Amino acid sequence: MNEILEQSLLYDFYGELLTAHQKQIYEQFILEDLSLAEIAQTAGISRQGVHDIVKRCHKALRGYEEKLHLMEKFLAIKSKVYKIEELEDIQRIKKIANEIIEEL
Amino acid sequence: MNEILEQSLLYDFYGELLTAHQKQIYEQFILEDLSLAEIAQTAGISRQGVHDIVKRCHKALRGYEEKLHLMEKFLAIKSKVYKIEELEDIQRIKKIANEIIEEL
Repeated sequence: MNEILEQSLLYDFYGELLTAHQKQIYEQFILEDLSLAEIAQTAGISRQGVHDIVKRCHKALRGYEEKLHLMEKFLAIKSKVYKIEELEDIQRIKKIANEIIEEL
Repeated sequence: MNEILEQSLLYDFYGELLTAHQKQIYEQFILEDLSLAEIAQTAGISRQGVHDIVKRCHKALRGYEEKLHLMEKFLAIKSKVYKIEELEDIQRIKKIANEIIEEL
């Protein structure tokens, strides 16, 4: 998975655990793709300050996933549900549904 | 959902975000069903101390769910996958698979 995609997925899952200020800065960086300099200017802090916040947010979000593995679980289930969508063989569909239930 | 079930589900999802000490106390209360007095004795703290820790853990776990809603999402997906397991009509199965993907 590329890093920006991973970061925005992690943010989708655990972003609500960041503070309002962290979210504001991190969203501009990850979702709006602004540069550190641009974010620094709007937020009225230094470029280095923005850099530190982004780094801290990234580390926190990764930390949540390392502890909870919920994103990993969701993605595994999602790929199995996509398989169900493609299949026509009802026995194979039931087998996959069973696997999902065991994972949940 | 009854309260003990809800608490142990929440613990399953977010328990890893508690400290080691909190986990130890909370597990004895929720999973091993020990009384506050029993836990207090083993841990060498007061009954009131155990009560406070349990209350704080419960509040923290609920707080995570209120922010992230991941347990709610998982349970909704699980009930849909159970439906897939029961159905024989492939068109209805695909419709439900689609709904799951939209929720994920």
